[in-house]
Amino acid sequence: MKHISMTASEIAALVGGSVVGDPGRVITGVEGIRDAAPEHLSFVGSKKYEDQLATAKAGVILVCKDLAGASAADRTLIVCDSVDYAFAQVAARFAEEPPRAVPGVHPSAVVDPGAKLGEGVSVGANAVIEAGAEIGDGAVIGALCYIGHQVKIGAKTQLYPGVTVMYRCTVGAQCVLHSGVVIGADGFGFVPGPRGLVKVPQTGIVEIRDDVEIGANTTIDRARFGKTVIKDNVKIDDQVMVAHNVVVGESSILVAQSGIAGSAELGRGVVLAGKAGINGHISVGDGSQIAGTSSVMRSLPPKSIALGTPAESQREFMYRYSLPKKMQKVEAKLKELEAKLAELNAKA
Amino acid sequence: MKHISMTASEIAALVGGSVVGDPGRVITGVEGIRDAAPEHLSFVGSKKYEDQLATAKAGVILVCKDLAGASAADRTLIVCDSVDYAFAQVAARFAEEPPRAVPGVHPSAVVDPGAKLGEGVSVGANAVIEAGAEIGDGAVIGALCYIGHQVKIGAKTQLYPGVTVMYRCTVGAQCVLHSGVVIGADGFGFVPGPRGLVKVPQTGIVEIRDDVEIGANTTIDRARFGKTVIKDNVKIDDQVMVAHNVVVGESSILVAQSGIAGSAELGRGVVLAGKAGINGHISVGDGSQIAGTSSVMRSLPPKSIALGTPAESQREFMYRYSLPKKMQKVEAKLKELEAKLAELNAKA
Amino acid sequence: MKHISMTASEIAALVGGSVVGDPGRVITGVEGIRDAAPEHLSFVGSKKYEDQLATAKAGVILVCKDLAGASAADRTLIVCDSVDYAFAQVAARFAEEPPRAVPGVHPSAVVDPGAKLGEGVSVGANAVIEAGAEIGDGAVIGALCYIGHQVKIGAKTQLYPGVTVMYRCTVGAQCVLHSGVVIGADGFGFVPGPRGLVKVPQTGIVEIRDDVEIGANTTIDRARFGKTVIKDNVKIDDQVMVAHNVVVGESSILVAQSGIAGSAELGRGVVLAGKAGINGHISVGDGSQIAGTSSVMRSLPPKSIALGTPAESQREFMYRYSLPKKMQKVEAKLKELEAKLAELNAKA
Repeated sequence: MKHISMTASEIAALVGGSVVGDPGRVITGVEGIRDAAPEHLSFVGSKKYEDQLATAKAGVILVCKDLAGASAADRTLIVCDSVDYAFAQVAARFAEEPPRAVPGVHPSAVVDPGAKLGEGVSVGANAVIEAGAEIGDGAVIGALCYIGHQVKIGAKTQLYPGVTVMYRCTVGAQCVLHSGVVIGADGFGFVPGPRGLVKVPQTGIVEIRDDVEIGANTTIDRARFGKTVIKDNVKIDDQVMVAHNVVVGESSILVAQSGIAGSAELGRGVVLAGKAGINGHISVGDGSQIAGTSSVMRSLPPKSIALGTPAESQREFMYRYSLPKKMQKVEAKLKELEAKLAELNAKA
Repeated sequence: MKHISMTASEIAALVGGSVVGDPGRVITGVEGIRDAAPEHLSFVGSKKYEDQLATAKAGVILVCKDLAGASAADRTLIVCDSVDYAFAQVAARFAEEPPRAVPGVHPSAVVDPGAKLGEGVSVGANAVIEAGAEIGDGAVIGALCYIGHQVKIGAKTQLYPGVTVMYRCTVGAQCVLHSGVVIGADGFGFVPGPRGLVKVPQTGIVEIRDDVEIGANTTIDRARFGKTVIKDNVKIDDQVMVAHNVVVGESSILVAQSGIAGSAELGRGVVLAGKAGINGHISVGDGSQIAGTSSVMRSLPPKSIALGTPAESQREFMYRYSLPKKMQKVEAKLKELEAKLAELNAKA
Repeated sequence: MKHISMTASEIAALVGGSVVGDPGRVITGVEGIRDAAPEHLSFVGSKKYEDQLATAKAGVILVCKDLAGASAADRTLIVCDSVDYAFAQVAARFAEEPPRAVPGVHPSAVVDPGAKLGEGVSVGANAVIEAGAEIGDGAVIGALCYIGHQVKIGAKTQLYPGVTVMYRCTVGAQCVLHSGVVIGADGFGFVPGPRGLVKVPQTGIVEIRDDVEIGANTTIDRARFGKTVIKDNVKIDDQVMVAHNVVVGESSILVAQSGIAGSAELGRGVVLAGKAGINGHISVGDGSQIAGTSSVMRSLPPKSIALGTPAESQREFMYRYSLPKKMQKVEAKLKELEAKLAELNAKA
């Protein structure tokens, strides 16, 4: 962390919160609630974690409105609307910055004379940029990256070391691609031919729009024809697989190891939790949430919540989940009926 | 796409189909059925998509025999045996080719003098080829690839940028390995020793035969001893994991994020759908199909269809899947019986 | 394999076993039990594989104590405590060594003058090492690796080609990192802000301790703040995902394609089988075992065995698994009761 300090009132002004306690209280860093010391700012974002407040040693604590009345004791609370967002804002002030990329082309990089580099572009050691590629102003191409022919990378986009973007694909502005990402490998398309499987040429591209972040070792395949599209502000975690011709809507979130099969279409603001899967050629409506390790087999309307494999609604899933308890009741009830019947039979 | 055009009769000749409508109709590109315009060829491969024919704007449409009688209206149909294969053939004609690899060794590549390169081999920028490696005629080693000691790469095989093939592994002819593939990392073998886990040396190799395609970021581990084998014509998607000593039979298909544990053996023409898993030390018979997200725990005979975790037959899976409905019936029936019993009891 | 030979008595001395049969019997290699020939050593580690002994052709066979009385016939048995460990010891003797890394910096590597390299360090072709990095004595940095600013790599640690370790992360001594591993990409943290998702700065590091092995294309993300920690002797397979702020306890084993969500904590000696998942912010107690393809949603006490999604105890899982059989019994019983009731009704 940086060696700086902030007072509670400065923090409240930054995050738009209100101070309960000493507005002059000084903190010199941020820390999780269990590890925080008196010189730290920390946070408790939900009433259900209220007990953590009692034992917390942090000097200043961001809390949600539900916790505004909690005892401040010897520390200061800052009550705010969105604790997560507020904490992110403060943490960003204290964050030690990552090493800054130096503008210019490292002498070991191989940049084709037919590539166009914008103002202030940084190209790292041993990176390779092919003919016809266009790199926007202020973009950073990390060490050992590969930028294929006619690829377009938008302004201020950052590629960490070891990213591969294959020919003709496009990446928008202010994107972040982490190491090991592969954009534009061939989609997986084979059809039975007279002498075994025949490759279907994958002639489309991947189009990644603005403000997209893509985690380490994620793969996004080029379209069979046309485009695989990742729309603005989509956030993708590590080891996610996006197949050919998929469309992912604005601000959707794909958590680690999730996967989307060919030609599926996700709306805006869809969330796939970790290891979730989406079948090919289906659509998932805006704002839907898919539980971890669940696989969606059929199209879903907007705002769906789906769990399990094949994925069901929450109500269906909970019913299925409760089957063992229901079965125990049924078995008990059957015994009871049998006994009553035997009794009746004896009487008859 | 290329700027070329074809007539319906030329297309019919290429795919072995028959024209219904105007054989002179000209198209200048291919497109999916929903996006196709009058200058495009498109396809409808199954009777169940017949309604797409009604609204399609494509000038020429490849259709299956079931749809031979469909109204052609103002466009031309071409009836063919395998619509998918036919479309792939036509699409290949129109496909803009990927940038062609230039034969020769890029000056930035590091090729050990003890490596042998065949005729017309292309080695990309910053690639590394170690001593004793042998690269077959016409093979392409992409930029930033790593080819280990004594590795053999077959003729006309293409490694896209950033592929790693570790020492002594072999890759056959006409294979395609996409970016981020790792062939021949150590198998995962540890045994409890007197002072913690002890590594079991992984001294075998990976042997990949001919006409194999391997998707981005897939990993295939070397054998504990002997070989991990991928037989002819196997097609592997992105982020697939093949463990040590696995054998994958001819023309099998491993879809994205599937995984095969150590020493398992797949027969010919096996299909693992996305995210499927195969337990270690079991065998899966020829032509078996494993559903997505399913995990196979026991060996399966040829032509098995398996679903769920642990994977079951289709009949077993459907029975299990229908348990909630059965439970509702059981609960209703129990109430009915209870009522009848109470009635009888009252009478008695 | 190396061209050496060993006698049964030499092998028995190495592994601390006792010979049944000819102590002078010579073998020249090791092989799996099905493929072994008379010149090979092989092994049968469990009574349940006893039938393999009958047909085995291996000259010398390591067996567990339960099999000490098995007929030796024309070969020699060596009875030992831990067959797996014993076999690993012998296999290591015969194993052909991997190509040895040459100490020194390859001329094509880009090593910042501000990096510190220990004694006997090997840096492969086209590798990149940034300013402030420290590489311990005898460490091997493979070709095309990227070592970020202020990274520390411990003594005798081996990075195979194409590993990425991002700024400020630390790797201990005697570790092995396979190709495509990415250490220290940003954790996945976004919060809703006034204009869409806002990135939470990920300012922590990854700390990997000693004797850790990490499989190909595995990703371990840096902490939001503080550390993501992989403790001593942890063994991680290929394509495993470890999210920000996770702690993995000593000697734990993470099998391929498993994943651990943010801030989860695993105890000592935990085993995640293939494709298992651990939810964020939970803890898994020492010595717990999680079945393949299972997802753990709640914290587990030490020595738990958990299966299914959401993961349950073995007893709960088996009950759930047996529901179809129970349902069939229930349906039969209901019919029986109905018939009896009808009979009674008729009588009444």
